[in-house]
Amino acid sequence: MPIRLSSLFLRTLREDPADADVAGHKLLLRAGYIRRAGAGLYTWLPLGLAVKAKIEQVIREEMAAAGAQEVFFPALLPREPFEATGRWTEYGDNLFRLQDRKKADYLLAPTHEEMFTLLVKDLYSSYKDLPLSIYQIQNKYRDEARPRAGLLRGREFVMKDAYSFDTTDEGLRASYQAQRDAYERIFTRLGVDYVVVKADAGAMGGSASEEFLSPSPIGEDTFVRSAGGYAANVEAVATVAPEKIAIDGQPAAEIVHTPECSNIKRIVAFSNENKKRTDGAEWTAAHTLKNNVMALISPEGKRELVIVGLPGDREVDIKRAEAAFSPNEIEQANEDDFAKHPELIKGYIGPVKDGKAILGLEGVSKIRYLLDPRVVEGSAWLTGANEKDKHVYGLVAGRDFSADGVIDIAEVRAGDQAPDGSGPLELARGIEIGHVFQLGRKYAEALGLQVLDENGKLITVTMGSYGIGVTRLVAVLAEANHDENGLIWPAAVSPADVYLVAAGKDEVVYETAEKLAAELEAKGKSVILDDRLKVSPGVKFGDAELIGVPNIVIVGKGLENGEVDLWNRRSGERRSVRLESAVAEIVKG
Amino acid sequence: MPIRLSSLFLRTLREDPADADVAGHKLLLRAGYIRRAGAGLYTWLPLGLAVKAKIEQVIREEMAAAGAQEVFFPALLPREPFEATGRWTEYGDNLFRLQDRKKADYLLAPTHEEMFTLLVKDLYSSYKDLPLSIYQIQNKYRDEARPRAGLLRGREFVMKDAYSFDTTDEGLRASYQAQRDAYERIFTRLGVDYVVVKADAGAMGGSASEEFLSPSPIGEDTFVRSAGGYAANVEAVATVAPEKIAIDGQPAAEIVHTPECSNIKRIVAFSNENKKRTDGAEWTAAHTLKNNVMALISPEGKRELVIVGLPGDREVDIKRAEAAFSPNEIEQANEDDFAKHPELIKGYIGPVKDGKAILGLEGVSKIRYLLDPRVVEGSAWLTGANEKDKHVYGLVAGRDFSADGVIDIAEVRAGDQAPDGSGPLELARGIEIGHVFQLGRKYAEALGLQVLDENGKLITVTMGSYGIGVTRLVAVLAEANHDENGLIWPAAVSPADVYLVAAGKDEVVYETAEKLAAELEAKGKSVILDDRLKVSPGVKFGDAELIGVPNIVIVGKGLENGEVDLWNRRSGERRSVRLESAVAEIVKG
Repeated sequence: MPIRLSSLFLRTLREDPADADVAGHKLLLRAGYIRRAGAGLYTWLPLGLAVKAKIEQVIREEMAAAGAQEVFFPALLPREPFEATGRWTEYGDNLFRLQDRKKADYLLAPTHEEMFTLLVKDLYSSYKDLPLSIYQIQNKYRDEARPRAGLLRGREFVMKDAYSFDTTDEGLRASYQAQRDAYERIFTRLGVDYVVVKADAGAMGGSASEEFLSPSPIGEDTFVRSAGGYAANVEAVATVAPEKIAIDGQPAAEIVHTPECSNIKRIVAFSNENKKRTDGAEWTAAHTLKNNVMALISPEGKRELVIVGLPGDREVDIKRAEAAFSPNEIEQANEDDFAKHPELIKGYIGPVKDGKAILGLEGVSKIRYLLDPRVVEGSAWLTGANEKDKHVYGLVAGRDFSADGVIDIAEVRAGDQAPDGSGPLELARGIEIGHVFQLGRKYAEALGLQVLDENGKLITVTMGSYGIGVTRLVAVLAEANHDENGLIWPAAVSPADVYLVAAGKDEVVYETAEKLAAELEAKGKSVILDDRLKVSPGVKFGDAELIGVPNIVIVGKGLENGEVDLWNRRSGERRSVRLESAVAEIVKG
Repeated sequence: MPIRLSSLFLRTLREDPADADVAGHKLLLRAGYIRRAGAGLYTWLPLGLAVKAKIEQVIREEMAAAGAQEVFFPALLPREPFEATGRWTEYGDNLFRLQDRKKADYLLAPTHEEMFTLLVKDLYSSYKDLPLSIYQIQNKYRDEARPRAGLLRGREFVMKDAYSFDTTDEGLRASYQAQRDAYERIFTRLGVDYVVVKADAGAMGGSASEEFLSPSPIGEDTFVRSAGGYAANVEAVATVAPEKIAIDGQPAAEIVHTPECSNIKRIVAFSNENKKRTDGAEWTAAHTLKNNVMALISPEGKRELVIVGLPGDREVDIKRAEAAFSPNEIEQANEDDFAKHPELIKGYIGPVKDGKAILGLEGVSKIRYLLDPRVVEGSAWLTGANEKDKHVYGLVAGRDFSADGVIDIAEVRAGDQAPDGSGPLELARGIEIGHVFQLGRKYAEALGLQVLDENGKLITVTMGSYGIGVTRLVAVLAEANHDENGLIWPAAVSPADVYLVAAGKDEVVYETAEKLAAELEAKGKSVILDDRLKVSPGVKFGDAELIGVPNIVIVGKGLENGEVDLWNRRSGERRSVRLESAVAEIVKG
C-alpha cells in the first residue's frame, strides 16, 4: 500500500524552525522527518523512521556479510562494570547517572565495551569459540554540554556498536579489517561521501584506530590529508621533528633586559630593534619558546598544573591537548594557580633562571614541564628568564634545559609535512560517522576475559570496537543532499522509491494516480502518493521538493494527452512519457 | 544463509540457572535466548532477538492494517510534560528519575501519553487531521520493586504503545475497536492463548478499558469469568448488591458484654453459645460487620486514615483496594495511627457508640467511613460497640448508621454472581499481554490539545491508549510452549522455520545437510543448521529439543538408506522420508 499524504502523520513547514542551526537539520524539521522533544532529544515521525530503517537494514546486511551477529543490550546498566574499567568516573559529566529505588547506581550507556566483554566471558571459555564479532543497533546516551545541529550531536542517539574477540593480535587485525571493509561497503551503499583517517586513541585506550569522516563544512572534526594519501584526524597527526643540531660551538645563553616585553609580539619587535641575529635573519615568533601554564582536572576533580613549551608561532590546539591529556579536562592556569607558584613570572616564564633549571627534570619547580617535538636537542631559543622584564637569548635545548617529556599538542597547519613523508598537509572539516578501533586487551584485562588456549593455558582475549552513528548518518545525508527547496535523498535511503503527485481536480487524475501507485508497488517499488483533494498543485510540488524523494512522478495536466511527467529531483530534469509506458520507464530508473 | 551452530554466539546450559524462578524463563536462559544483565535487565542473544523481531513484525503488519502509523520517541524525557499531567509524582518509586549536567530533571518514560499528546498538538490543529492513530515499538522503563520471572516483569522492556486521537466519542469508540480488533489478530497470529477482560481504569484515568490476559498459573493478575461470557480482571468486578430490606419492624440494636471477643471467630462462637438468632440459623462471619482501618499514602507522602466496613467473611482484596484508592498507596493502620485516634478500640470498632454515630457522615470521628455494597439499607449487623469487650447486635444500616460512601474492595470469590447476570464466576490467573483503554480527554485537557471543529470552534481531542508488552510476550510464549526437555515455539515466532541436525561423523552427512539447508532456504524457509563436527548426536538432539524450533530434520544414520528423519518437536512424532522428497515434505509441513 502506498503511503498516502491524505492520511500521513505529517505537517510540512514553510518557515525555518527557530531553534534549528544547520541547513540539513532545518529541512528534516520542515519536511516532517523529525521533531524536537527536548535538548538533544528527537522524535522520529513516519518519514524519518523510514529513512532510519533503511540505514539500519544496510548496516545489518553488511554486518552479516562480515560475519558479525546481532545482539541487544539494555541501555540502563549497573555501575559496577563501568567502575571496573574506570569509565564510571572517566566519562565525567557526559555520563547520565541515576539511582534506582534502592539507591543503587545505574547509568545510561554511552557505549557497551564492558557489557560485551562480560557477556563473552559469561558464555565462552575456549579459544575454539573465537574469533567472534557481535554487534547491536541501539539507543545510546551522552549528556553533551552543547547538543547541536539536531541529530548530529544529540543526547539520545542510535549507534551500531560492534565488538570483536580474538586470541591473537593477527586475529584482531583480521577482525578489524573485516569491519573496516564492511564500513566502506555500508557508506558506499548509503551514498555517503567519506574519508578514512588515522585517529587518536583518546579516552578509549588501545592501539590502531581509524575514523570515517564525512567531509562537511559543518563538521566538528578537523582532519588533514596529503596529496600522497595520508589522512588523519587532527588529534592523531604526529609532528615531524626536525633533525638534532650540534650543541658544540653554539654561543652561551645571554640574559637581556627586555622592558615591557611580556608578549611574543613585543619581544620579537624588541629583538629586531636591539639584538641582531648572527644569521642576519629577522627575529620571528618561531624563534621564541612560549611556555603555557595549563591546569589538568582529573575525573576525580584533582587539579594539577603542567607547563608546555612550544615555538611561539604555534598555538596549543585544544582538541589535540584534550586528546593528549585525556581523561583529564584542561583549563588555562588562573590567578590562584600563579599565586601558589611565585616562581612563575607571567609573561617571562622560561625553563631556566640565572643559568639554573627551574622547570623540567632538574628544575626547582615541581610543575611538570613538557616540550613540543620541534624543540629538538641543540635548538636555540629566545625565552623568558623568570624575572620581570628579562629574557634569555640562545638558550639551547639539551645543554641549558631539559623537560619531563615530549607532548605534541601544537596546532597543525596547512603546509605542515605529513608524518609519512607524503608531502604537505591540507586541512578540512568532517563529521565522524564511523570509528574502528583495536582496543587490545584493556577491557579484557579489567574484566577478566580469558579463554583456554590449545595447551589448556588461560590467555587474555584481545578486542576491537567498531561504531557507526546511525541517527547521525541521517543528519549527514540530509546535510549533504539538499538544495534551497528541500532534501534530495540518495535512492538507498529515500523514504520511498517514487513520489507520485496527483495534481488536478478531475477524478480521473486521482484514479490514474492510484492505479499507477498500485502498478509500481506490484513491481516492488514503494510509493508515496500525494492524493490530497483540496491542496493546490503548487503546494503539492513544493512538498514534493521539500520531502526529497529523488524520483517524482506527476499525474496532472498532461493526462489529457495521455502523458505523465517524470521529474528527477536531483537534476531537476522533467520529461513527459506516455501513461502506458510510465511504469516501465520509472522501474527502469 | 542458514544460522550455523558451529559459529552461532550461543552456549546452551544443561543446568537451570540459579536465579531463574519460572520454567519458561529458565529455558530461555538455558537455550541461549537471553542473559541477565542486572536486576530486571536482560540482554538479547541472537536467537532471542530473532523471536523478538518476529513478534514485532506481526505487530507492525497489524498496526498498519488498523491504519496506525509508526513513530519513535526518546526514552529519556524532560520532567515538564509529566508534571503537567501529575504523573511525575503519581508514578512514585516506579519512575526512574535523573538529572542532566545542568541539574534539570528527566525521566525514563514508562509510557508516552504526554509526548504523543504534545506531538499531535505540535503538528495538527484541525478536525480534518483526525482521526489519527500512531504507535511506537520502544524501550520502556519501570523501577519495579520486585522484578520477577525474567522478561515477565523487567525494569527495561519493549512495549508497543499506540494512541488514538478523535474529535468525538463515537470516533474514539471506532479507533478503540480498530486497535482491539488488531490485538485479537496479533495474538491469534502469534499463537498466544488470551482472554479479553474488563479492566479497572486504575492510575490512568479515563473510561472503557479492557485487558488481554494470557491464562497462566504464574500470572500475577486474577481474573474472573462466567459461563455466560462475562470476563473481567478482579479489580474491575462490580459486586452485585442485594436488595434493600425493610427497616420497619426490625428489633432495636442491643449492646452486649462480649468478653474476649476481639476477633470474628470468637464473637461468632460466643454468639452461637449465648445469643440465639431469631431465625434459628447459626451465627457466621457473614453476619458480622468488620471495620478495617487503613492508611492511604498519597504520591506526595500525605497519610490519611480510612475505615472500610465489610461483611466479616470477606477479606479486603489488596489489588482491588489499590485500584480503588489509586494513586494512593495502602497500608494497614499502625500503632501510631491508633494512638492518634483513641475513639477506635481495636477489635471492637463499629459505626456507633451508645446509640450515637461515631463513624460516617454524622460520626464524631473525622476518619472517612466507607461501606461494602453488601451493606445495603435495612441489613442488620453484629459489630463492635467501640468499647472493650462490647458488641452491638442488630445494628441496622440506614437506621442506626450510615457511611461517607460505598467502596467495592472485598475479595471476589468463585461462585459470586457475575454483575451482568450471566451466572456464577470462576477465578483464574493470567498475565497481562495487552491493554486497550479509552483515555478520554484527560491528557488532552492537561496538555491543551485542541483542534478547530467544522465551525471554527476549539474542541478538546479525545484519546485512546493501546499497549502490548512485546518482550513480555516472549516470556508468555516460552511459558506456554515447553516441555521438560525445552522450548516448543509456535511456528510464527520460531527463530527459524527448520532446525536441521547433521548427526554423524561422515562427510556425506554434512554435505547432505548443507545441501538440504540451501534448498530449504531457496524455498523461503529459514534454517538453523547444527553443523558442529565434534559434538555427539545425543548432545545435538538435546540442543535441538532445548532450542525448540518446531520442525526438526535429522540427517544421520538413515542416510545410508537414502532417508532423513522429520521430527515434530511438539507431538514428538518422528518419521523417515526419502532424501529426494524431503524438501517437498518439509515445505508442505
